[in-house]
Amino acid sequence: MGHNDPGQDDTTRQGQAVAFLAEARVIVDGALEHWLPDDLDGAPGLAEAMRYSVQAGGKRLRPALALAACRAVGGEDAAALPFACAVELIHTYSLIHDDLPAMDDDDLRRGRPTSHKMFGEAMAILAGDALHTLAFDVLLTHTDDDAIAAALGRELATASGSMGMVGGQVDDLAGGGIAPDADRLQRIHERKTAALIRASVRGGGRAGGASEAQLDALGAYGAAMGLAFQITDDILDVTGTAETLGKTPGKDEREQKMTYVALEGVDGAQARADREILRAREALAGLGGQLPGRELLVALAEFVAHRDR
Amino acid sequence: MGHNDPGQDDTTRQGQAVAFLAEARVIVDGALEHWLPDDLDGAPGLAEAMRYSVQAGGKRLRPALALAACRAVGGEDAAALPFACAVELIHTYSLIHDDLPAMDDDDLRRGRPTSHKMFGEAMAILAGDALHTLAFDVLLTHTDDDAIAAALGRELATASGSMGMVGGQVDDLAGGGIAPDADRLQRIHERKTAALIRASVRGGGRAGGASEAQLDALGAYGAAMGLAFQITDDILDVTGTAETLGKTPGKDEREQKMTYVALEGVDGAQARADREILRAREALAGLGGQLPGRELLVALAEFVAHRDR
Repeated sequence: MGHNDPGQDDTTRQGQAVAFLAEARVIVDGALEHWLPDDLDGAPGLAEAMRYSVQAGGKRLRPALALAACRAVGGEDAAALPFACAVELIHTYSLIHDDLPAMDDDDLRRGRPTSHKMFGEAMAILAGDALHTLAFDVLLTHTDDDAIAAALGRELATASGSMGMVGGQVDDLAGGGIAPDADRLQRIHERKTAALIRASVRGGGRAGGASEAQLDALGAYGAAMGLAFQITDDILDVTGTAETLGKTPGKDEREQKMTYVALEGVDGAQARADREILRAREALAGLGGQLPGRELLVALAEFVAHRDR
Repeated sequence: MGHNDPGQDDTTRQGQAVAFLAEARVIVDGALEHWLPDDLDGAPGLAEAMRYSVQAGGKRLRPALALAACRAVGGEDAAALPFACAVELIHTYSLIHDDLPAMDDDDLRRGRPTSHKMFGEAMAILAGDALHTLAFDVLLTHTDDDAIAAALGRELATASGSMGMVGGQVDDLAGGGIAPDADRLQRIHERKTAALIRASVRGGGRAGGASEAQLDALGAYGAAMGLAFQITDDILDVTGTAETLGKTPGKDEREQKMTYVALEGVDGAQARADREILRAREALAGLGGQLPGRELLVALAEFVAHRDR
């Protein structure tokens, strides 16, 4: 296996990323299965609705990043697993709420009916709320060290609240029909998507015992990676099909959403994503050492920028 | 001032409770004002919507209980303040989401337009989500001791998630039109309202350094107190006016909600609330000692069972 060699064959990297995502999925899905409620002795349909959205699939990119970052600083998977699951639970709750009629009003998610289509709006709101709480519950209950658990909880809350993901969602809703502006768009992307991806990477590292310098390197990697992810998402909305996306393409243009594609065209947006991926890779130099997880982080960055095209 | 004297004049106890609620409100509102976001550099309207609902008033009963429980075991207010605010933020987010058209569809809350009436549904959902995250953020960021912070976070998550408040809300939605049953109703009330009130009391005690025996006593007090609170709420829905309630009365009956009033009439429900208050007071014997906070807990129990009637 090559060591962070820029000339390494892209196909090999893609293969590495795909194999690791599959491995991480097994680990993460097993833990989620265990930590999701099963029989609530009441609250009819709630456990089912929570499981439906968590088990809808998706790439499990965020928890995979957390596990890779943990390995990259020499940690064991078990140390980062509660945090990795917590991040996925936050991501899932946000998708349920984003899909609601009052928000993006989507009928399909990952090729299946969205939560409110399956269970009704009230249940979708409450299932999202319950997954939101469960994220903090799992993190704080199953992380062995309370000081690390509290630090991870702070990291997750900052990334997902009004200064992070939820703030970005408000930006996004407010931005429809407004003339695009690269700075403003970057700020929206940073909050809406990159903040949680960055937290996934940093949190995984923290759970694995990262030094402050390593956390800085992982944070820089995660921020660039998160931007590249969102830019690629915008590109896929133009170039993808309902089948490859698992959702209706072309929505951004119909809703006049501010995207890099609207601003710079597909090629310009792709060049921007590639620059972010390069920045992400360069940031990893700050990790020091060459633990296997670092190679995985490189592969995941390449994967994100070239997925489904 | 009497010491837990059952013969003490009710008016004095009411006065004690009212005075303490006013004192707690100043402390809690000052901290919330400080910890709520102000300028988010984007996300237009989000900080305003978050503040609107938190600053809508309400009795601040849950944070007051947390502070009183902390004092009852000899703790300083400052130790319980982040937790007290977190509980109020969870309570506030749940009210915003409960009021949504897909849920209880309420236009008025505490005499003012509900969040979705003021800011639209999308913003109301997101403001609720942001307050939900902020609860854990405030708790984990401002509680000095990480081990206590993590324990308080677990307490809060258990009480407010699928096994607690959100589960009870699902029960409540599912229960409309079903013949009332005292056991089932108690389970719904325990989850929907009592779990968070119990957690407020236990968490306040934990923050103040309570022993396990003291936590048990506070938990038993809080559970009984929470039931009494919800039973009284059901009674007020029948006996109250829009002016005293700050919301439209008579909703439970119109929606055929399962309540103790439907089951046992106003007098029967009142007798039940009084029994719970007695149980709450008796549980305090397990606290040991006679610190001032204990007297406050007795006064708050009396207040809850006899408010606004």
